[in-house]
Amino acid sequence: MQGILTPEYRRALTSRMAETVREAARFNSTPGNGITRFPFTKEAAQVCDYIEGLMKEAGLSVSRDPSGAVVGRIEGEDPRCVLIESHYDTVLHGGAYDGMAGVICGIEIARLFAAGGKKLPFTLEVMATNDEEGSRFSSGFFSSMAACGAVTPEYCEKDRDKDGVSIAEAMRAAGLDPGKLPQEPRKDLMAVFEIHCEQGPVLEQSGVDLGIVDAITGTHRVTVDIIGRPDHAGTTPMDMRVDAMQAAARLIISVTDRAKALGNSVSTIGRMSNEPGIVNIVSGRVSLWIDFRSTEREKILTMRKGIEDDLKALASSMGIKYGLTERMIDWPVAMDERLRARLEKSIEKTGASFMHLPSGAGHDAQIFAELAPAAMLFVPSIGGRSHCPEEKTDERYMALAVETVYDTVRGILEDGGL
Amino acid sequence: MQGILTPEYRRALTSRMAETVREAARFNSTPGNGITRFPFTKEAAQVCDYIEGLMKEAGLSVSRDPSGAVVGRIEGEDPRCVLIESHYDTVLHGGAYDGMAGVICGIEIARLFAAGGKKLPFTLEVMATNDEEGSRFSSGFFSSMAACGAVTPEYCEKDRDKDGVSIAEAMRAAGLDPGKLPQEPRKDLMAVFEIHCEQGPVLEQSGVDLGIVDAITGTHRVTVDIIGRPDHAGTTPMDMRVDAMQAAARLIISVTDRAKALGNSVSTIGRMSNEPGIVNIVSGRVSLWIDFRSTEREKILTMRKGIEDDLKALASSMGIKYGLTERMIDWPVAMDERLRARLEKSIEKTGASFMHLPSGAGHDAQIFAELAPAAMLFVPSIGGRSHCPEEKTDERYMALAVETVYDTVRGILEDGGL
Repeated sequence: MQGILTPEYRRALTSRMAETVREAARFNSTPGNGITRFPFTKEAAQVCDYIEGLMKEAGLSVSRDPSGAVVGRIEGEDPRCVLIESHYDTVLHGGAYDGMAGVICGIEIARLFAAGGKKLPFTLEVMATNDEEGSRFSSGFFSSMAACGAVTPEYCEKDRDKDGVSIAEAMRAAGLDPGKLPQEPRKDLMAVFEIHCEQGPVLEQSGVDLGIVDAITGTHRVTVDIIGRPDHAGTTPMDMRVDAMQAAARLIISVTDRAKALGNSVSTIGRMSNEPGIVNIVSGRVSLWIDFRSTEREKILTMRKGIEDDLKALASSMGIKYGLTERMIDWPVAMDERLRARLEKSIEKTGASFMHLPSGAGHDAQIFAELAPAAMLFVPSIGGRSHCPEEKTDERYMALAVETVYDTVRGILEDGGL
Repeated sequence: MQGILTPEYRRALTSRMAETVREAARFNSTPGNGITRFPFTKEAAQVCDYIEGLMKEAGLSVSRDPSGAVVGRIEGEDPRCVLIESHYDTVLHGGAYDGMAGVICGIEIARLFAAGGKKLPFTLEVMATNDEEGSRFSSGFFSSMAACGAVTPEYCEKDRDKDGVSIAEAMRAAGLDPGKLPQEPRKDLMAVFEIHCEQGPVLEQSGVDLGIVDAITGTHRVTVDIIGRPDHAGTTPMDMRVDAMQAAARLIISVTDRAKALGNSVSTIGRMSNEPGIVNIVSGRVSLWIDFRSTEREKILTMRKGIEDDLKALASSMGIKYGLTERMIDWPVAMDERLRARLEKSIEKTGASFMHLPSGAGHDAQIFAELAPAAMLFVPSIGGRSHCPEEKTDERYMALAVETVYDTVRGILEDGGL
């Protein structure tokens, strides 16, 4: 097999990363029930120390940024910088790979440059970002937003976790100062890379080694309240009911069928409740969350209008009333075409197979894309599973991703740009 | 207007019953949030004392039966007995009329006989039954089942409320002895009547005063668990999902559409939950309760088979798995045709308007129907509301029901049978 690294190095790299993933998974507030590492917690501090150790051992100079990210750098001739980033926080009861796999790959890429021994023409930075998931606060993308100068100290005072602790209070308890969050976007970035597990089944089911992300889907979320009338389930004839549950069922089918018909789109009702929720009472209210995504802006707008059209039609045909509340509006972000072409060439050198695919989940890369050309490389998720204890990625693919991004970054540094 | 009672008596009866309903509503464990009177509680004991007082004042001889029912009697020449019954317990946060309206009507009917002053040819009994609703224990129809000899002391030891108190313990605390529950059915009943608020909108929307129940619907309940796969809502393409929520929505529509198409049938999904219940995760499991009813046995069987056919079809088309559990099987019970014809004639004498309709809810009358010919008379529910604090029936209709059933029972006593 051809390749950029020697077979021996690849093997050593694979087993070292497997060991590192295992080690990092020790920093976990829910042992025995997946990995949980929320921002600004004891486990977050422990994994930061661990990452700092890994970075130093790989030959990087390490610092912490005001958002709680761990930053390892190899200073080059030019302070302009190629950034390789991923996050160290997790969801509740998540897995060992989401985020940390990319952090570990980034450090391994930097190690290859550091091992080269000669001054780089540009600077290389590896960043382990904080609070990407938004699992503790409603924030998420915290370090990347901070890099954009988009997190104000005032915001940090307001947003609170379920125990009423504000981001600012959590930051101070972790030794960070919200007043030091940059209020201007970084201007030193030439290119940004993020390696991440796919978190879906496409690569595995397609039988390919690596995925080049063409775009990160836009995610919109709305909550819909359907108001009917809570009648007796035995004594109210079917044609005299205003049944919120029947209306909700029709909405669910319409919304999911529309996403299927549009293509390159998904729509999910993952959270739903009804009132009074009693077996012999017709539902007077159903509340549901609709999460709908596409890499195409137009399709998101079509799905959004479809929800409103459905609700109007149900109000007219079934007599329900409704309310609709915006919960999230993230537009799709295209990955940089030049970086994607470079990644493609590098993958070909490694001999790995690949495909282009969208990212259905949000990532820090979509935020950094506001500052510089950005790209993402996916490694397969076994069984497509993610955000669960069973989450797993074969470290062999992580090694291929390291090899690929190392080659791509080397090309950019050598070429002095994209 | 023609009538059996004088206009003055009717007016006095109407206002006396309005006052009695208000008084009885004081015995309530949830003041300010509807009426709650669970079996064997302090409030149940208080309302029993109150009912006993009413019965005595109306001229009845009063006793308590082993199930906790209050029994008022006018002994006749013959111990064979016409029974007028309704219940004194309520659902959680219910209203003042469900059950108590019928108890009060029964006492007023007996008052008319007692006022006659002469020995009756047969015995008249008014029974205020206990635990008809099944809101505290999973029992329900407790006094009527006891009258059938169908409640064993062993059963009373097993069935427990949410605090772990068994029926037997609750009975003993209320001064009742489970060992005294009759183990043989009553053999003295000639006919059974129950006056009840409709609990639905049919009488009001049809603009009639009284409803003669032709049959009490059979109620079947099943729980269905639909098992899909909990995938990431962003990263799993629509065509790679096994979405339990989409399958549940299709089942809900099929099940409710089928009841509509069958006619004289209802089907309700009033209780539903999904797992993991997170906005960005496809549902791995949806559990729902299906309550389906008809006065026709064949239609119940058709609906039951329909649920199974739907689930098989969804398993085949969507890849879900499923489980189905029986929760309740009550078959329809026809009301006695002779009693219905007699009620019809009596209503005509009062000048009231009426219709025949099924009862969509269960009632003690369906249990007593195993012992003797049984009939039910409905009074309109304002707005069709029941099992809620807003539950209301105009006492004017209750007076018409008293007048009707009084006339019907008088006819039976005079004719020496049906």
